Amino acid sequence: MTRVQDVYPDDRASLREVGMRDGLQLVKTFPSTAAKQRWTREEYAAGVRHFEVGSFLPASTFPQFADVREIIRTVASLPGAHGIALALNERGVNEALASGVAEIASVVSATEEHSQANARRSRDQAIANVRRLCELRDASEHRPIVNAAISMALGCSIAGPVDPNEVIRLVEKCLEAGVDFVAVADTVGYAGPKQVGELTKAIVKLSGAKPVCVHLHDTRGMGIANASAALDAGARILDGSLGGLGGCPFAPGATGNVVFEDLAFLCESKGFKTGIDIERLVAVRAILRSEMPDEALYGGLARAGLPAGKAGVAA
Amino acid sequence: MTRVQDVYPDDRASLREVGMRDGLQLVKTFPSTAAKQRWTREEYAAGVRHFEVGSFLPASTFPQFADVREIIRTVASLPGAHGIALALNERGVNEALASGVAEIASVVSATEEHSQANARRSRDQAIANVRRLCELRDASEHRPIVNAAISMALGCSIAGPVDPNEVIRLVEKCLEAGVDFVAVADTVGYAGPKQVGELTKAIVKLSGAKPVCVHLHDTRGMGIANASAALDAGARILDGSLGGLGGCPFAPGATGNVVFEDLAFLCESKGFKTGIDIERLVAVRAILRSEMPDEALYGGLARAGLPAGKAGVAA
Repeated sequence: MTRVQDVYPDDRASLREVGMRDGLQLVKTFPSTAAKQRWTREEYAAGVRHFEVGSFLPASTFPQFADVREIIRTVASLPGAHGIALALNERGVNEALASGVAEIASVVSATEEHSQANARRSRDQAIANVRRLCELRDASEHRPIVNAAISMALGCSIAGPVDPNEVIRLVEKCLEAGVDFVAVADTVGYAGPKQVGELTKAIVKLSGAKPVCVHLHDTRGMGIANASAALDAGARILDGSLGGLGGCPFAPGATGNVVFEDLAFLCESKGFKTGIDIERLVAVRAILRSEMPDEALYGGLARAGLPAGKAGVAA
Repeated sequence: MTRVQDVYPDDRASLREVGMRDGLQLVKTFPSTAAKQRWTREEYAAGVRHFEVGSFLPASTFPQFADVREIIRTVASLPGAHGIALALNERGVNEALASGVAEIASVVSATEEHSQANARRSRDQAIANVRRLCELRDASEHRPIVNAAISMALGCSIAGPVDPNEVIRLVEKCLEAGVDFVAVADTVGYAGPKQVGELTKAIVKLSGAKPVCVHLHDTRGMGIANASAALDAGARILDGSLGGLGGCPFAPGATGNVVFEDLAFLCESKGFKTGIDIERLVAVRAILRSEMPDEALYGGLARAGLPAGKAGVAA
């Protein structure tokens, strides 16, 4: 049994590479299994410890995740590395549990409209799914960490603005259901830092001793500013993808997750240790460029490098 | 005589389009005078009121600023619009005063190393130049606003980290010399939001009733996060360029100023009125694309548009 505080200590920022899951959600070409394994190992060598490696979705529809079990094993083979996989229904949860993955992620949409359109279920059904996931975890041998992400928590591509009280209500239900922590997701890059800070603060308070994850997209260029606000509000787990890999299904042409290497620079510049060597991390982009030459990569650190006299920032 | 508080009221964020000056500092091709005039007029129609239009540098070396007087006249012809031009020595100051421009900007490097390398003068000589600028302003008929920007204030491309106490000492000298306000410039995009917030807070305190400008570059993707921190710390004047036009002479391949339209979105999302219609502003990028097809343009709003149900953000 893994204690969540061991995996996500509260005296540092835990940055999760979600490029292999969220970053590959929409791409037309995707890396080979061997390339994903290199991506994982090279980021591990750069100090990354948290990897969302895929999703237990039908491989016929999502062939990019067909090798999720192999990448879970790759992560598990690296001392101190932590693998996360997404499971959206009971079949997926059972497969995730059988895979031995260290953490299972689930999702609840913040709005009824998006829940129905995206997952063809109500938010109550999604919460029931989270509850069932926690029961199955409790009955399992290795008892993985379980998180629930509230998607569209800061604005919805269908419903528009989202009432923070609705998000807080859903967070309470997920915590009652027994998740180890919740994630707040700005799925379509809707919000600015004030809104992110205020919602994060409320959820940090609700979560008590449990950590809080904030999952941001850089759709409108606010990603790093929002991450800064999330850290100020007490979030200690942040998601990103190398080079900002990945688009957004609800905003064509929009960038994906926050750029992972810029996120590491932000954290270190604010005094949060990440354990990541930024220059080594930037070098891993070569794998993405050669495997997915048509995908746009973003990021300031990759363009400009670390500032003069700041090599130590990555220590 | 213009009162600085009329031009930069403290109950809103004043966003200055510096693309025609800083954005054109390094480009190989540049817009025609007519295109600069369209750029100015269309941004004015989108609600922009502050334009840094060029520099009084020798036209032989900087042909992109040869038409600075014409653009100053264009801005002056638009009710409520405010033109700014850079002048780095007494010849430039006299030309700027003769042009009738509403504001004259001057620069002091934060480090002795950069001051010598960039302007071939000491910081003391730069301060003496600011003092002379204020004397000439006082003796002039139309008495333009005068600002002094402390360049490299958050990190130097030559000297590396910069002691904030040195910046504070230079700010004090500029305020004593009689400038209407100072600008803090992260010329090479060196800093993160913690550092920007702390320095801005100190300078806001020193400046008393005078406004504070923060001039940021997005070199390492921190531009918007830094702008957010600057607003939190009390800065009410922020510089940016449409599409993030412009590079950085000290970081090849790096982006230029903060993206103006994303900056407007940030301010509005934090509750600071800008008076800018973001969609109309984004449309002005077409002028840059057609005049400078080889220059990279950046920005989230241009990629993704305003979020669903947020058209009112620009009101």
